[in-house]
Amino acid sequence: MFSSPWIPFLLFVLSTSVVTALPYRFPRLSPIGEKFLHHSRVLLEAPPSDDFKTFYYNQTLDHFSYRPESYTTFPQRYIVNFKYWGGANSSAPIFAYLGAEAPIDDDLNVIGFMTDNVIQFNALLVYIEHRYYGKSVPFGSRDEALRNASTLGYFNSAQAIADYASILMHVKKELRANYSPVIVIGGSYGGMLASWFRLKYPHVALGALASSAPILYFDDITPQNGYYSVVTKDFREVSETCYETIKKSWSEMEAVALQPNGLSFLDQQFKTCRPIARYLELRDYLWSMYASAAQYNHPPGYPVTRICDAIDGAVNGTLGKIAAGVFAYRGNLSCYINEPRNETETDVGWRWQSCSEMVMPISSDDDMFPPFPFDLGNFSRYCNGLYGVPPRPHWATTYYGGHDIQLVLQRFGSNIIFSNGLKDPYSIGGVLHNISDTLLAVHTTNGSHCLDILKANETDPEWVVAQRKTEVDIIKAWISKYYADLANYKQNKTF
Amino acid sequence: MFSSPWIPFLLFVLSTSVVTALPYRFPRLSPIGEKFLHHSRVLLEAPPSDDFKTFYYNQTLDHFSYRPESYTTFPQRYIVNFKYWGGANSSAPIFAYLGAEAPIDDDLNVIGFMTDNVIQFNALLVYIEHRYYGKSVPFGSRDEALRNASTLGYFNSAQAIADYASILMHVKKELRANYSPVIVIGGSYGGMLASWFRLKYPHVALGALASSAPILYFDDITPQNGYYSVVTKDFREVSETCYETIKKSWSEMEAVALQPNGLSFLDQQFKTCRPIARYLELRDYLWSMYASAAQYNHPPGYPVTRICDAIDGAVNGTLGKIAAGVFAYRGNLSCYINEPRNETETDVGWRWQSCSEMVMPISSDDDMFPPFPFDLGNFSRYCNGLYGVPPRPHWATTYYGGHDIQLVLQRFGSNIIFSNGLKDPYSIGGVLHNISDTLLAVHTTNGSHCLDILKANETDPEWVVAQRKTEVDIIKAWISKYYADLANYKQNKTF
Repeated sequence: MFSSPWIPFLLFVLSTSVVTALPYRFPRLSPIGEKFLHHSRVLLEAPPSDDFKTFYYNQTLDHFSYRPESYTTFPQRYIVNFKYWGGANSSAPIFAYLGAEAPIDDDLNVIGFMTDNVIQFNALLVYIEHRYYGKSVPFGSRDEALRNASTLGYFNSAQAIADYASILMHVKKELRANYSPVIVIGGSYGGMLASWFRLKYPHVALGALASSAPILYFDDITPQNGYYSVVTKDFREVSETCYETIKKSWSEMEAVALQPNGLSFLDQQFKTCRPIARYLELRDYLWSMYASAAQYNHPPGYPVTRICDAIDGAVNGTLGKIAAGVFAYRGNLSCYINEPRNETETDVGWRWQSCSEMVMPISSDDDMFPPFPFDLGNFSRYCNGLYGVPPRPHWATTYYGGHDIQLVLQRFGSNIIFSNGLKDPYSIGGVLHNISDTLLAVHTTNGSHCLDILKANETDPEWVVAQRKTEVDIIKAWISKYYADLANYKQNKTF
Repeated sequence: MFSSPWIPFLLFVLSTSVVTALPYRFPRLSPIGEKFLHHSRVLLEAPPSDDFKTFYYNQTLDHFSYRPESYTTFPQRYIVNFKYWGGANSSAPIFAYLGAEAPIDDDLNVIGFMTDNVIQFNALLVYIEHRYYGKSVPFGSRDEALRNASTLGYFNSAQAIADYASILMHVKKELRANYSPVIVIGGSYGGMLASWFRLKYPHVALGALASSAPILYFDDITPQNGYYSVVTKDFREVSETCYETIKKSWSEMEAVALQPNGLSFLDQQFKTCRPIARYLELRDYLWSMYASAAQYNHPPGYPVTRICDAIDGAVNGTLGKIAAGVFAYRGNLSCYINEPRNETETDVGWRWQSCSEMVMPISSDDDMFPPFPFDLGNFSRYCNGLYGVPPRPHWATTYYGGHDIQLVLQRFGSNIIFSNGLKDPYSIGGVLHNISDTLLAVHTTNGSHCLDILKANETDPEWVVAQRKTEVDIIKAWISKYYADLANYKQNKTF
């Protein structure tokens, strides 16, 4: 159930006191959307068992330079479950979950693709924490690591996947598991890392499962309004009247806010936790809520349906309808909208990452939201103001590619599953068509963000069960083919 | 003709005053071995025509970090020949020569594969200079750029190929040549860069011709004594007695050197330019000469044959025979062995590169040379002493792979020609077997280092003519297939 408490993912907007509209509109890029909810859900389940052992690797700060500072090391956390592994002698597989923009802790319980399939693959499970998150922080402390661009500078995806390569080679060496095939798994930003990892380090990973990875949402590859056009479509498909109500609500709320005592009226209507200072607070909250509901429109709760049922069912005017949507989405709380909340590591970390290299130009235009252009100039100035360095908006496509991906990769690379759920607004920046026989798109019409890699559940609809099975079968086929190649290689080794 | 004047490639040995044996034995890694000779050869030919236009790209100092210093830029030189290009409308090909550890100037005349084939491919020719060489130097001056590890730190292959990606994307954009296939070409270290470039940036290059690229001479992939075992074999195949003479000469020379007036006697025998201070000077000179002769054993001169003919033909004892070999190799000079000579950019640059990431463990053992182990500990201390930072001997295989390359790449990647000549001692660290239908090894039994990409010549033996034709035919097939894919893609574009 995805009811209580909703945590906005446009956290930045809510946690700063900037008055003018911020020059970006990036929804969260994580397998799990509603952090606190997931936390409580995790707590209800068994804690990670003793089978998970924690290690720290002495990681190099800067893989791509040889300045004296580059050699600085930091402890990078990775967690291993040996229990079901078939061992080095049989070259049993290694499943490696590539950590994304959060501490790795939750992933042990959340990423069902690892734990649900460990037995049938006799796999070793390895979870690697992303640099600058959790306990994998350079410069001795989070404060130091996040101090300014000089210390943050090493906090990027190329360094992160080089970390993963180093750790996986280390693990294989320690276990004398040279010939164990490694399958890397990641979701959202972590899914991008997984697909890029297979492309850049084929000698380390045999294949990748990249769940809900919008690797094409860079530069001009995907239309900027793609994300919010899918959010809009999701709501519209559930209910045309719901969509209409939301679409017209913005101007009505703004008009109310401009009236004498208008903000107080909005406070009453929305049962705000503290008085809202201006309409934009309310707007951004609702905006984020709709986006999050669409992105994490998981069964069995289906938050988009829940919101729309409430909106359509309420009888007390547009504002009352919108407020009913909020109450339904968040569940029974003493107050709504602007609950006090601390910034998370993800908020802080992703702010840097999206302001440096993960520049995804997302706008809204001709959908159920107010128009909101993405202006790269504004965005650059904004980031420069925060960190003293500008973003590099073209670096992701320079290093990883993306333009004409079908043409480029149809005869290059292999063994990547790009999985998506088409209700997920980020899916519009994902790979939705097979590129070759081994670069495969696996998607579901009704799926949401990273649903396929979350824990299997009795209430799962048949289509997500089928999607997961397809993914498992594809990976089994990669591994079988690899074992055949390996046997042949060992017999006929020529060099 | 490869007669006059021989330039030692173990320059380091000759240009320092270290008394003990240096902990490495790295032969030069360039398409052209005998720099001065080539210079004079180049001067005899037409100078680069007006068809070559020089450009400077505002290159990023550090692609992989976002510290304020990373954004520093420097002018990187690239040279373009537009004359024969078929143009963007026909998506005519781009041949990009990836500069190696030298200024780019000479390559315009030396790399015949570019100029000899430009007309039949209607190709645009682009030559890109490697960072820290020639006119492509950061920090405003060579002195600053080479000052210490803090400025040298950005001088590495990953940054260099990211430079190439940035420039090639820039050139394509400027020419609106989005769909022009790029073929990258390089020799020796530049050949390694070409093959790695295709693997890391398939969205920028359609294919690579990697000539004499010893990408497997890292870590423990290739036996350490491989290089000198091939040198030995080359000499032995020309003449068993020549081989025997060289093999026994070392102890005889050393014994002479230890006698009273022994060094003077050696000075007389070898007609040295100035008195040799100790036996090791002579040893290292000869060692380098034999290696260079084998590596650059080009037709029609065949320096190994020339040396052995002289050794076998001389009648005045072992020392006289060896001296005759030197005179034959170097031609008629007023003196030999320790001619005064300035360090080149290549000497200085490659010293850093081999002391940071291009750590190729080369030893001699059980061949015609004195035993010379490669001791990584010594080597690291030596490099650390020079630069204050140790080498990263495992980085090349971490970033680029190499172990079990056949197993790893048989279902990954495409469109690389690994060309080699088996007389070239570096060929033993090259890819000598086809990995897949499109990762191809093209080698000749009698070929030498980078011979295939040098200018075609009337005196070329049939086998090198055939090798070049094979390479051209393979590249033509890649491009044809690409054009078919492109037509199909434009018609059926799904995303």
